[in-house]
Amino acid sequence: MFFHRQELQHRAKPDKPDAVYARKLQEVLGGQYGEITVAMQYGFQSWNAHLPGKYRDLLYGIGAEEMGHVEMLATMISQLLGDAPVGAVEGAVQDDPTVAAIIGGTDPQQAIVAGAGARPVDSNGNPWTAGYVTASGNMLADFTANANAEMQGRLQVARLYHMTDDAGVRDLLAFLLARDTMHQNQWIAAAQELRDEGVEDLPVPSTFPQGKEHTESSYQYINFSDGQHASEGRWASGPTPDGKSEFEYVDTPPPGEPMPAPTTPDPRFHGTTGKPGAFEKAAGAVKDALHRE
Amino acid sequence: MFFHRQELQHRAKPDKPDAVYARKLQEVLGGQYGEITVAMQYGFQSWNAHLPGKYRDLLYGIGAEEMGHVEMLATMISQLLGDAPVGAVEGAVQDDPTVAAIIGGTDPQQAIVAGAGARPVDSNGNPWTAGYVTASGNMLADFTANANAEMQGRLQVARLYHMTDDAGVRDLLAFLLARDTMHQNQWIAAAQELRDEGVEDLPVPSTFPQGKEHTESSYQYINFSDGQHASEGRWASGPTPDGKSEFEYVDTPPPGEPMPAPTTPDPRFHGTTGKPGAFEKAAGAVKDALHRE
Amino acid sequence: MFFHRQELQHRAKPDKPDAVYARKLQEVLGGQYGEITVAMQYGFQSWNAHLPGKYRDLLYGIGAEEMGHVEMLATMISQLLGDAPVGAVEGAVQDDPTVAAIIGGTDPQQAIVAGAGARPVDSNGNPWTAGYVTASGNMLADFTANANAEMQGRLQVARLYHMTDDAGVRDLLAFLLARDTMHQNQWIAAAQELRDEGVEDLPVPSTFPQGKEHTESSYQYINFSDGQHASEGRWASGPTPDGKSEFEYVDTPPPGEPMPAPTTPDPRFHGTTGKPGAFEKAAGAVKDALHRE
Amino acid sequence: MFFHRQELQHRAKPDKPDAVYARKLQEVLGGQYGEITVAMQYGFQSWNAHLPGKYRDLLYGIGAEEMGHVEMLATMISQLLGDAPVGAVEGAVQDDPTVAAIIGGTDPQQAIVAGAGARPVDSNGNPWTAGYVTASGNMLADFTANANAEMQGRLQVARLYHMTDDAGVRDLLAFLLARDTMHQNQWIAAAQELRDEGVEDLPVPSTFPQGKEHTESSYQYINFSDGQHASEGRWASGPTPDGKSEFEYVDTPPPGEPMPAPTTPDPRFHGTTGKPGAFEKAAGAVKDALHRE
Amino acid sequence: MFFHRQELQHRAKPDKPDAVYARKLQEVLGGQYGEITVAMQYGFQSWNAHLPGKYRDLLYGIGAEEMGHVEMLATMISQLLGDAPVGAVEGAVQDDPTVAAIIGGTDPQQAIVAGAGARPVDSNGNPWTAGYVTASGNMLADFTANANAEMQGRLQVARLYHMTDDAGVRDLLAFLLARDTMHQNQWIAAAQELRDEGVEDLPVPSTFPQGKEHTESSYQYINFSDGQHASEGRWASGPTPDGKSEFEYVDTPPPGEPMPAPTTPDPRFHGTTGKPGAFEKAAGAVKDALHRE
Amino acid sequence: MFFHRQELQHRAKPDKPDAVYARKLQEVLGGQYGEITVAMQYGFQSWNAHLPGKYRDLLYGIGAEEMGHVEMLATMISQLLGDAPVGAVEGAVQDDPTVAAIIGGTDPQQAIVAGAGARPVDSNGNPWTAGYVTASGNMLADFTANANAEMQGRLQVARLYHMTDDAGVRDLLAFLLARDTMHQNQWIAAAQELRDEGVEDLPVPSTFPQGKEHTESSYQYINFSDGQHASEGRWASGPTPDGKSEFEYVDTPPPGEPMPAPTTPDPRFHGTTGKPGAFEKAAGAVKDALHRE
Repeated sequence: MFFHRQELQHRAKPDKPDAVYARKLQEVLGGQYGEITVAMQYGFQSWNAHLPGKYRDLLYGIGAEEMGHVEMLATMISQLLGDAPVGAVEGAVQDDPTVAAIIGGTDPQQAIVAGAGARPVDSNGNPWTAGYVTASGNMLADFTANANAEMQGRLQVARLYHMTDDAGVRDLLAFLLARDTMHQNQWIAAAQELRDEGVEDLPVPSTFPQGKEHTESSYQYINFSDGQHASEGRWASGPTPDGKSEFEYVDTPPPGEPMPAPTTPDPRFHGTTGKPGAFEKAAGAVKDALHRE
Repeated sequence: MFFHRQELQHRAKPDKPDAVYARKLQEVLGGQYGEITVAMQYGFQSWNAHLPGKYRDLLYGIGAEEMGHVEMLATMISQLLGDAPVGAVEGAVQDDPTVAAIIGGTDPQQAIVAGAGARPVDSNGNPWTAGYVTASGNMLADFTANANAEMQGRLQVARLYHMTDDAGVRDLLAFLLARDTMHQNQWIAAAQELRDEGVEDLPVPSTFPQGKEHTESSYQYINFSDGQHASEGRWASGPTPDGKSEFEYVDTPPPGEPMPAPTTPDPRFHGTTGKPGAFEKAAGAVKDALHRE
Repeated sequence: MFFHRQELQHRAKPDKPDAVYARKLQEVLGGQYGEITVAMQYGFQSWNAHLPGKYRDLLYGIGAEEMGHVEMLATMISQLLGDAPVGAVEGAVQDDPTVAAIIGGTDPQQAIVAGAGARPVDSNGNPWTAGYVTASGNMLADFTANANAEMQGRLQVARLYHMTDDAGVRDLLAFLLARDTMHQNQWIAAAQELRDEGVEDLPVPSTFPQGKEHTESSYQYINFSDGQHASEGRWASGPTPDGKSEFEYVDTPPPGEPMPAPTTPDPRFHGTTGKPGAFEKAAGAVKDALHRE
Repeated sequence: MFFHRQELQHRAKPDKPDAVYARKLQEVLGGQYGEITVAMQYGFQSWNAHLPGKYRDLLYGIGAEEMGHVEMLATMISQLLGDAPVGAVEGAVQDDPTVAAIIGGTDPQQAIVAGAGARPVDSNGNPWTAGYVTASGNMLADFTANANAEMQGRLQVARLYHMTDDAGVRDLLAFLLARDTMHQNQWIAAAQELRDEGVEDLPVPSTFPQGKEHTESSYQYINFSDGQHASEGRWASGPTPDGKSEFEYVDTPPPGEPMPAPTTPDPRFHGTTGKPGAFEKAAGAVKDALHRE
Repeated sequence: MFFHRQELQHRAKPDKPDAVYARKLQEVLGGQYGEITVAMQYGFQSWNAHLPGKYRDLLYGIGAEEMGHVEMLATMISQLLGDAPVGAVEGAVQDDPTVAAIIGGTDPQQAIVAGAGARPVDSNGNPWTAGYVTASGNMLADFTANANAEMQGRLQVARLYHMTDDAGVRDLLAFLLARDTMHQNQWIAAAQELRDEGVEDLPVPSTFPQGKEHTESSYQYINFSDGQHASEGRWASGPTPDGKSEFEYVDTPPPGEPMPAPTTPDPRFHGTTGKPGAFEKAAGAVKDALHRE
Repeated sequence: MFFHRQELQHRAKPDKPDAVYARKLQEVLGGQYGEITVAMQYGFQSWNAHLPGKYRDLLYGIGAEEMGHVEMLATMISQLLGDAPVGAVEGAVQDDPTVAAIIGGTDPQQAIVAGAGARPVDSNGNPWTAGYVTASGNMLADFTANANAEMQGRLQVARLYHMTDDAGVRDLLAFLLARDTMHQNQWIAAAQELRDEGVEDLPVPSTFPQGKEHTESSYQYINFSDGQHASEGRWASGPTPDGKSEFEYVDTPPPGEPMPAPTTPDPRFHGTTGKPGAFEKAAGAVKDALHRE
């Protein structure tokens, strides 16, 4: 169950409205790595969790915080749009180039659809989609996904920090940067703890018996480009992070396998299957099939 | 530039066709973590790379391999559909329940749209979308995204391994499992190397001056659920993975900030802004505005 | 701010697992009118509300309840998948047609992607999209949208009720049916109250001066089909619900306006603009334009 | 069957071209509540109607009108783009800030993809999707959806009216505003008639026996936020709109139910199911399963 | 303007309901090449046409017919669902494997969402999207798109013809096959007429001065794969269809150009730009930039 | 298998950065007819090909070239963004209107998400989707789709050519124009060769026995609009391109068929099926059904 309190975790008030920035800020609300994504992602991971206890409590605890971040950003965007201009008169543009920037840089749907309000979309107006969510039931995979989400998220907030000099906006972003710092550290720590406790390990999923895979290729870097420098990385030699082998560098991909013969599906799929002559055969086969029915 | 050779990296031929499995296998071809995703993801990361040398060579080298995996899976699916039934006759279902399973379990678009061929979609027929791709320009973030993609990918291949007993299919999956083992290890190693070389560090992006964030919240676990076990994890106390602080556990979220006053946008947005009386005022303001023009 | 409590508003446990039904139930979790839609819709309406007080409190109060419904349904789906079969062996299908139904009727992504877990998608596997959300800033419009959402939602739950005879599942659905009964009534009452208090009225938006619209067409039913029975409805005669006029029935649409002359854009758009002769002219104009640069 | 006449229901010609406005106008053509939505929605509702006569005739009659509105708006947009600039030269921007506004505010796809033409997208360029359509087979639910669509539509047209001062554009919008006035009234009247005639009633679907739902929760407002004002609304006390009960206000949600125990799916899903020790067990179980095959 | 008549162009009544086939038939209603696509495509091409007369009349004349096809297919699907089963009882499956096929093979949304009705989606339930539509303003390009659409459409209808033996369904498909035969021929004829009249020509757009393109590559087949047979086709030698040159076969792609040096964007984008040492420089630059503000 | 070489087929370096143009160029990278589309389209056509030899070799040979075009365009966009501004300071806009144009005209996600990099999206930021891909298994249909794709692609590149005067950009576009010239010619030639060799013919699919279609409608132009000029085209009289008949012009559509009676699905779908009285009957039927269980 979720309960709502009419407060914000942090102040969400700009010093002054800025409709152009209100569009940009949509990215971290409704974008691929926006707050809706992490709120839903941690939610579905918790609801699908098979393991009660500290890991699931962690997901619950953070998931609800992220829903509050959704609210903070929506509130901030709404405040940034408080004085959004309704339209544009040509004269105004002539007098003040800033108006031109506003016309071009704002999200028309924040005006036309939401009446100067926040929307569940990214900075290009793409609606948020659940295709962004990851919840696989395997915690080491998912915590790695979470660490990535918090890295991408903090990176975007940092970029947005440089795109405004409004102290009120920056104050909120500074708070979000801090929380993303925590959440990056936390997921990395949690992923490590899964390994330390032997609950899961590399390679994911560690419960699949590795002997069943083609182990001769399991630790080879195979170079399908003509760059030579990949051989210099630690992924080209030395022990592997899963602690199970040594990396090997293969500069030239070994010869491949011949392709299997193309299929010849039922002629009633009307695919192009034939050489001269085969065509009549296919047409005849279809005719026969229809006749038989 | 890309060059194609009419060979496959590994054999892609099932022992016998299986139209139901052909649908399932679409997931690792055209799904969120399918081969199209990683091929495109490593491609865009390489094309946007700002740093020539081993990291970019790594991206190029793997990206082209993944394009070959797209081809192998499309080929395998096409082979699995080689004898796909065109339709269904009621009598056949009565005689053989397997027919019923095939009717229900196949992807109708593989038949109707592709004529017994592979499609760039997932196992539910959702078209692949570039919304799955991550390429931020920050390599530590992106290599973490890549590690996650290979974990989710290997997990899905492992699940698919158990969903068939066709030796030909399993042979290809065993190869893909091995490559995913390598790729998981490789991205983790590459991410670590970025840190070891001081090219990037935690928290991402490390070039943002941490003093600008609200540091009092940077390492606090704040519990927004009522579970008590999150305090037991290593994310609740002890040193943080970025090596910069200690985790702190906060069981009760501190009081929040009051919400800012709602905005009152231009009445020409026709939002519901008023209490009784305010309504007439808004209508009047719109009328006046229209009159003035 | 949102807080989570590790309880459910109602029991969410089936009497026994049912992987086919788990797919169907996705509709009211992640479909167009599923619980994610209403949770997000009431959220964005509240965050964009310009009017503090009872209407916004209503949105906050219900929005958090709906997040809890998201959790209940995800939990139920996860329980229904508790014993989901991994794959299918041909022999089993032969022995038991039920297995065939399960193969065909289950969502492969619940297995391959979520490892027997719930997903933020509908019953055909389409990811939830924020394109479903309505939050316009005008409360009479939005509360009507909400009434519709609760009607469609209750309708779908009722249909799903008939698709199972599992007492545990039905128990949860019976609870959701009751809540949808309340929410239908509530939004209709709230919409009426907006009108009674003079905060908003029909036609929406009532703050637009109706004298500016083409009032001669404001209350006419114009029949663009050849059915004759539409004239029998109360929308064809008598007073209009907004209390401002009488309906009029127009059986034959009045003659239209001639279409404006087609445009002839800049030849550098290379549109097909010409009759014989015009083609050379267009090509010449492009050449000239390029020459001038 | 549909027949086309080369006339428009209303004049669709701007006084002068305006490429920036041409983008904004896309919203009511190809957006969530644009004319394509209502044309398709009324179409599918009519084709799925189970009840011949006045209600279906109404749907047919309006559906064809809306297809004509699609055409009018596409024509207007095309006219607005008649002189759309091909590109931009830096010098021109320096001389005239209006050019800057045009560069920023136009839809690049109207130029690059359609060659100065209208597109089936919204004002942010999102392609129209049938995910916007509602056609449930239940007319009271669907007519409520229609009333909402016409409200949102009229609201957006009103906002667009204020964003231009072109008399030709406003003339068309004034016509659309009038038709939306009619259509709001009409769907509300039709919904009421369904109830008056006893064809359908609240709560939707009224054919579901209400005794089967958990009636103790059917008319309770349960407050999941900490606002106190929701108790003041007519949804908190007094008779319910369905005429079947009285509203009740519940300030504190009753205690919930404990969550069911997490599931432990087949180990071959490789979910994280275990505490220390359980991991080896899972890996062993997978190995055994593979061995047995 | 569009007018509707309550008749169908052809009979749309199956001999008996078939809920599994009702799902498959969705493909040619709401799929990539379904009737909604061509109706909208011809509509937008006509509304954007710059050239009045026979070509535009052709688009208008066919566009309205296709809207009627949308209606016929929706009607047929609705009829096929007339007796759709609500749910499934386990006993029934045991007794009759056909029930199992129905469970697995039907579209759950036709039942849950539309109440046994047609939907604007394809056979996998993907909502129709305007991303399928082509309307470029160039008629030779667009008529080629139309020819393709009618080919893909007729191909899918032919496949669907073989997937049923219901005489009523086949009767409608036989009519659609005939219309697609006409429409293929018609668009090919219209494309040819554009060329014959000199209104447009190959290569599209013919108004672009070909001298501006890199003509040395304009008629070369360059072989980026290792197959040798492409040299045998008429695209490898002999006159080109545009009548302007001769094909040339290039077996080995000429050496390429070196890649440009990677970019080094503003450090405030926090991209990974540096080698050791550069990292500190970037962090310093960000700090300086923030300090200066 | 695919191999990558660190070279570009053509130089991809602008004379100077241009962030506004970088957004526009996205169209031919990640749009409906961008390079990702053709690369994937030719790929899937080759992997699903049933006919080895010159046609499949053609698909392989071109497919790999197009992947290289994806890379060239991504590289060019990245270069164009090399000096992209991070944000905007109001003072700068006042001094230089060009800044206003840049603010409005750039893609915010190229900055916020990709850190001044290319993205797999179109010029409005819509992610590329596999819904753009055509691969039916029938080569005559697919080669026509390919001819169209190359026409639309060349048209868009030509438009983009006029939208910049940067010599470096134009140099790359001039190369792409040339390749599109080749590819248009090539697919037209290949389509013709299929017919000449008797492998496939018009109407597609030619293996369907035309006698089964309603031949009386197979070559009729039926005019559903009131324009008279369509009768003047070569699609209205004379021999048909498939060489099998003569066109016929039908000015007035023949009378249609009556619509079938509406369906009356199981009352448990709760559709609106009844006239007064029928409602009680439906509710009773539902009650009975629930009672019986």
